[in-house]
Amino acid sequence: MLNVTIWNENQHEKKDERVRELYPEGIHGAIASFVQKEDYNIKTATLDEAEHGLTREVLENTDVLLWWGHIAHDQVEDEIVQRVTQRVLDGMGLIVLHSGHFSKVFKKLMGTSCDLKWREADEKERIWVVDLSHPIAEGLGEYIELEREEMYGEHFDIPTPDELVFVSWFEGGEVFRSGCTFKRGNGKIFYFRPGHETYPTYHNKDVQKVIQNAVKWAAPVDRKRPVYGNAKPLEVISAT
Amino acid sequence: MLNVTIWNENQHEKKDERVRELYPEGIHGAIASFVQKEDYNIKTATLDEAEHGLTREVLENTDVLLWWGHIAHDQVEDEIVQRVTQRVLDGMGLIVLHSGHFSKVFKKLMGTSCDLKWREADEKERIWVVDLSHPIAEGLGEYIELEREEMYGEHFDIPTPDELVFVSWFEGGEVFRSGCTFKRGNGKIFYFRPGHETYPTYHNKDVQKVIQNAVKWAAPVDRKRPVYGNAKPLEVISAT
Amino acid sequence: MLNVTIWNENQHEKKDERVRELYPEGIHGAIASFVQKEDYNIKTATLDEAEHGLTREVLENTDVLLWWGHIAHDQVEDEIVQRVTQRVLDGMGLIVLHSGHFSKVFKKLMGTSCDLKWREADEKERIWVVDLSHPIAEGLGEYIELEREEMYGEHFDIPTPDELVFVSWFEGGEVFRSGCTFKRGNGKIFYFRPGHETYPTYHNKDVQKVIQNAVKWAAPVDRKRPVYGNAKPLEVISAT
Amino acid sequence: MLNVTIWNENQHEKKDERVRELYPEGIHGAIASFVQKEDYNIKTATLDEAEHGLTREVLENTDVLLWWGHIAHDQVEDEIVQRVTQRVLDGMGLIVLHSGHFSKVFKKLMGTSCDLKWREADEKERIWVVDLSHPIAEGLGEYIELEREEMYGEHFDIPTPDELVFVSWFEGGEVFRSGCTFKRGNGKIFYFRPGHETYPTYHNKDVQKVIQNAVKWAAPVDRKRPVYGNAKPLEVISAT
Repeated sequence: MLNVTIWNENQHEKKDERVRELYPEGIHGAIASFVQKEDYNIKTATLDEAEHGLTREVLENTDVLLWWGHIAHDQVEDEIVQRVTQRVLDGMGLIVLHSGHFSKVFKKLMGTSCDLKWREADEKERIWVVDLSHPIAEGLGEYIELEREEMYGEHFDIPTPDELVFVSWFEGGEVFRSGCTFKRGNGKIFYFRPGHETYPTYHNKDVQKVIQNAVKWAAPVDRKRPVYGNAKPLEVISAT
Repeated sequence: MLNVTIWNENQHEKKDERVRELYPEGIHGAIASFVQKEDYNIKTATLDEAEHGLTREVLENTDVLLWWGHIAHDQVEDEIVQRVTQRVLDGMGLIVLHSGHFSKVFKKLMGTSCDLKWREADEKERIWVVDLSHPIAEGLGEYIELEREEMYGEHFDIPTPDELVFVSWFEGGEVFRSGCTFKRGNGKIFYFRPGHETYPTYHNKDVQKVIQNAVKWAAPVDRKRPVYGNAKPLEVISAT
Repeated sequence: MLNVTIWNENQHEKKDERVRELYPEGIHGAIASFVQKEDYNIKTATLDEAEHGLTREVLENTDVLLWWGHIAHDQVEDEIVQRVTQRVLDGMGLIVLHSGHFSKVFKKLMGTSCDLKWREADEKERIWVVDLSHPIAEGLGEYIELEREEMYGEHFDIPTPDELVFVSWFEGGEVFRSGCTFKRGNGKIFYFRPGHETYPTYHNKDVQKVIQNAVKWAAPVDRKRPVYGNAKPLEVISAT
Repeated sequence: MLNVTIWNENQHEKKDERVRELYPEGIHGAIASFVQKEDYNIKTATLDEAEHGLTREVLENTDVLLWWGHIAHDQVEDEIVQRVTQRVLDGMGLIVLHSGHFSKVFKKLMGTSCDLKWREADEKERIWVVDLSHPIAEGLGEYIELEREEMYGEHFDIPTPDELVFVSWFEGGEVFRSGCTFKRGNGKIFYFRPGHETYPTYHNKDVQKVIQNAVKWAAPVDRKRPVYGNAKPLEVISAT
């Protein structure tokens, strides 16, 4: 049983009719519906809940956390940010979606500004697979095409990704490293670019496939955590 | 002219006769003496100075910063940490030495705990070159041997390094990724393991060579910084 | 059903009583016995068979190939080498064991000499996990200890691995990048260092665990292969 | 003094008036003219010369080799290919330009097919800098724009690059990893995409800047080569 928690700030949904129409159960609800599998235990959590729905208990029982945020990054309490990033270092998988690039959680784990170029202009995005054998690309063709998306353009101010899975082409002339993996502590992180709230991106089958694959990929491995601090020698040291 | 600032907490030197004997001008003074070159402008800065010697003016005029800290990481003001990490993202090179792995500056830029195993047991360290063509390894043989050093052992809780230059062997049975590069924003970072305060490590010619090479490697490249934020399209978008 | 083929030159077994005693079914037989799982279809193949047991049919029906060779690398026909490397590029996983570092197959896929230092001196090897969340390290403690193994020491002349999973410590003073992943074409490659024929290494439970994990990790993903060559534009080009 | 050899198959120049007009001294001559610096010793070499102009003596006295080839890859003798790749492993820098992706030299060093999509359609290419602090990007703006170039599109069948410096956007809808570094043995390799023979690409100042930077970056470091083979222990081994 894999415990998956889908976090969404759930703010656009309250304010914007278009978003509600696209995602009547919220972006978190839409994601929950296609991530769902028999041996998965899916929860959702949102900003307005107590502790943003991310209590110690919830996080301790989360194997993979998905994160969607945009206009309310500042309202996420620093204590919760600390709790989430610590859980990632302890082994929880983290999937950061679209505008989550600017979340406190992602920026803290990356150590960089995570800034980028952006534009809302109803333009075409074509997401090319550049890592053929990556499990996150399983089942995809050569590219994913989205008729209309927000543009995110380079330079994307992240550390060098451990793996670069996708690169986007935008109609307006930009490119973007759209699918990036990072390891931090005992946890795996995947950043996936598309998913603007006013487009039906999360209804796209290929986008769904990527997120399904990513959840599986980000699941923790079963290992004891390393021991840090003062260590007795394992061999005889001649000076002592 | 390359502006190099060597920062040292300079606390052991005040308290421990052995350290003063090894490094009568302080660890910063020892490093300054061998980093010095004709076209370098070398400064030192220490914890006890106002703003730890790292005023805005000093940092704006620093191309490469070296960092040695150990027992006083907590005394480094968060505002100065913020200032230093921002300068790295803006392009300043950073060389983190030995126990600087636990400095606020390094941990903030890495996003991980930067924890490790350690032991003070007068044991031998042999630092193997694993990246043959890296400019930081220029002039070295197959390994650097240090008769007595503090041990740092894996697991070292850092993000995957962009480049792994050195791997250490320790007499007591451990290994360590001893020379690691990272890019963050516009800046380059090099972590170099050896340099415990009670050993003459910074008098070792090979260790000096590595640090000299690293200063040269970490120097900023001459480029305009990228533009972030809302971007006009470079091409015509059909929908608009 | 995952089709796994275990290739062994099977030469030491014919000449050396010690090896026969350790591995009465051959090294390939020993590996087959612990890789076996319900949903795996395991085959073995050896040098002396027609086409070294690696006919087109066998390879086309292999998802993951394991390779053990040592004294007979030169006897492997170039045509078979070409066939195996092509299958890796087409998506077959490849696990190269110990002295397989000098096989024609591995050298061709790496493009480097794959040379290293070595010594047979009954010495201790301690294989440290440096990539905490890698699926190949699942179930392991902080390190694997082998009382007696052949030494392989740096410099190991391979391309920078995509991922560095293990680093070995040797009693005689060397270190080695002992667990390395590489992606080539559609295929995944894992090199794993230990496994000298005169030691009971493949009876070690942790070594077995690594190889079991690696088989699972190296399994091909289900994707159509990319299309290469002349390509029609996906968008209107203004000049035409 | 850095010894730079520029190799060009020099075949289009003999057959195609357009190419001769663009590059009256040949592509090699054009490159030589802008790579030239006071402390550089520049040579050119072409396919039709004895040993393709790459005698043992020439290669032994080459620090950095540039390679442009396209329609005559097959005519390059295997012995010369072996000689060139061996020199790279021994430390010579190699810069592979445009259609050189399919040269025997590059394919042998990569171990993959190096295949890609392509199209000649007079389309626009925009080469984005994704690695801000890389010395090969020094002096560049956010991107290089080429009004007309041949298209190369993903998937590009290369090993994961050690560093990804540039990503191209093409008018026709594709992206490409256009600037990639690889380390092989003691040598550094840089692949740079643009440079089709019927366009004035090598007269573009930014393209020239990249190649100038790459020559500097690829220069060998001054180190003794590692020792391989049987190695005496550096420490006492308890069993012996």
